[in-house]
Amino acid sequence: MTKGAAYEGAGQLRTVSVQVEPPGPGELQIAVAYCGLCGTDLHIAHGNMDARVRTPLVFGHEASGTVAAVGPGVSDWEVGDPLTVMPLIWDGTCAACLAGHQHICQNLTFVGIDSPGALQQRWNVPASIAVRLPAELDLRTAALVEPVAVAVHDVRRSGLQVGDRAVVLGGGPIGVLIACVARQAGADVLIAEIDESRRDRIAGLGFTVSDPAGTDLGAEVERWTGGVGADVVFEVSGAAAAVRSATGLARVRGTIVIVAIHAAPREVDLQRLFWRELRVLGARVYQRSDFERAISLLSLGAIPVSELITDVVPLDRTGDAIADLSAGRAMKILVDVAGQDQA
Amino acid sequence: MTKGAAYEGAGQLRTVSVQVEPPGPGELQIAVAYCGLCGTDLHIAHGNMDARVRTPLVFGHEASGTVAAVGPGVSDWEVGDPLTVMPLIWDGTCAACLAGHQHICQNLTFVGIDSPGALQQRWNVPASIAVRLPAELDLRTAALVEPVAVAVHDVRRSGLQVGDRAVVLGGGPIGVLIACVARQAGADVLIAEIDESRRDRIAGLGFTVSDPAGTDLGAEVERWTGGVGADVVFEVSGAAAAVRSATGLARVRGTIVIVAIHAAPREVDLQRLFWRELRVLGARVYQRSDFERAISLLSLGAIPVSELITDVVPLDRTGDAIADLSAGRAMKILVDVAGQDQA
Ligand SMILES: [Zn+2]
Ligand SMILES: [Zn+2]
Repeated sequence: MTKGAAYEGAGQLRTVSVQVEPPGPGELQIAVAYCGLCGTDLHIAHGNMDARVRTPLVFGHEASGTVAAVGPGVSDWEVGDPLTVMPLIWDGTCAACLAGHQHICQNLTFVGIDSPGALQQRWNVPASIAVRLPAELDLRTAALVEPVAVAVHDVRRSGLQVGDRAVVLGGGPIGVLIACVARQAGADVLIAEIDESRRDRIAGLGFTVSDPAGTDLGAEVERWTGGVGADVVFEVSGAAAAVRSATGLARVRGTIVIVAIHAAPREVDLQRLFWRELRVLGARVYQRSDFERAISLLSLGAIPVSELITDVVPLDRTGDAIADLSAGRAMKILVDVAGQDQA
Repeated sequence: MTKGAAYEGAGQLRTVSVQVEPPGPGELQIAVAYCGLCGTDLHIAHGNMDARVRTPLVFGHEASGTVAAVGPGVSDWEVGDPLTVMPLIWDGTCAACLAGHQHICQNLTFVGIDSPGALQQRWNVPASIAVRLPAELDLRTAALVEPVAVAVHDVRRSGLQVGDRAVVLGGGPIGVLIACVARQAGADVLIAEIDESRRDRIAGLGFTVSDPAGTDLGAEVERWTGGVGADVVFEVSGAAAAVRSATGLARVRGTIVIVAIHAAPREVDLQRLFWRELRVLGARVYQRSDFERAISLLSLGAIPVSELITDVVPLDRTGDAIADLSAGRAMKILVDVAGQDQA
């Protein structure tokens, strides 16, 4: 038996004992080291995804670890190999898959939501979704591969180019990671964030920062871009007001990428979209190449990992970490699943 | 003195005498043959654009004709040459122009709205905006070059490819022209139109047609595309309901082109946009290459001109033509500016 963190119903998280099963054919058993918590995990914990998840659910999908056991038929992997997991399993047969967009398969299984996740000390996953880590990348840093891959996907989809000016609406973890990836790709970045403590943190990372509640963001972006407008605007806040403003910030033929989840339809200024021939793109999860690029960026030191990881907690404090994140008291919290930091 | 049709204030159109001035340096004087009327002309006539236009305004921008006189410094043109006009004059200095998007210049002069248009028997325009017509293209047909160029621009911007399935929301003149251009480019096209007489006309042109008010358009497009969704959706109706439905019709990574003018912000299902990684594009007016392609398509007979031109009226019946178009009693009406049909 090992330990895990399970969601058992709205607001109820419990440390549970998990029976260790040997990896099945084609599977790897992972000794999970760290698992980051993200907005989706908060939604699960708050009961917002009860229509989708089956309880009890061991959740978590931002994992790093090493191979603990290799299942029958799996080659290329050995016990002790460091790895992360791209938590998507597609059907391979739907229209999205047939068109080469497997990452947004119409029958996608998201591991850690639709099947057991990484908040357990032994985790069996198909070897096909394991992603090898370089030996020199420490496993704390590697727990950021998944969210960095989200940011890489968003920036790649935007078509951002060297010398572009990008505005990021929303300075939470994904917004900051998008800003880091865009900066690494050669862009100047302005982040708009309403929370003052987050703005201070963002300024400390060297980004131009703006308070969209306290200033005229449109006028500021106009000045910042010499009257041209932003090449790319990333909508990461999920706020209706941000969507309304986004079309006003983009240059002629500029791009707006919708990264955030907007549960309700949002008002969009289609007149401005038409007038400036703007482009609005949806961007969701990642592809294998995004994971590989994320690993490179983290290995290069291009992501300010120590500033982003505001806390590391043991497995039985997962509930407290969820509460801290929900209250905006933290940026990124990792769960020390193996318990080695406490050993 | 020659005759013209002038807008003099909401609902007031008058046939006026126009002083003929010789063409200035760099100008051509056009003997206008025909001028089509479009939605923008209706907006002008109804007084919706009073904040922009200066009265009296000789309007009209869908012209065909021949060169009547050549101004100083103009080479390459001779009296009698057939031509049309691309009615855009850009400043060449704004951010849009510098980025190569002159057609959506931020200080664009639209000839026929911001300066005198084609509803006059002698019309002086800069030679730079004249577009040569092949001798074998009759001048009635050539009056459709401008609206066909709009459709070419919209289809080109969509990235539509051979074998694609395209849905056109709104079966007015531009919607039907987009459908014709998309079909010519190798797509299957379904047109959704609420007006029954328009649907009959569209069915007669060989397109699949649907009544979005009377049927579940989403289910119909799902069936029509074998469960995949449309590759491209053109929003040409201007209706809020069409915008709401558009995201539901497109396949994974599909494209929605906003062609219509939406004066008010519209609710957009950003969740669907995100989930399917859709792309929404604004498309406005045309570029020179769109005009040239439009001339080719009309010369090839790829546009059902005789079905589209439902009436040709003399200049002093321009007001009646506007009324017929406003009441939905006509598809495309040409004004016989030269009066040769009445001669
Ligand atoms: Zn699939
Ligand atoms: Zn310009």
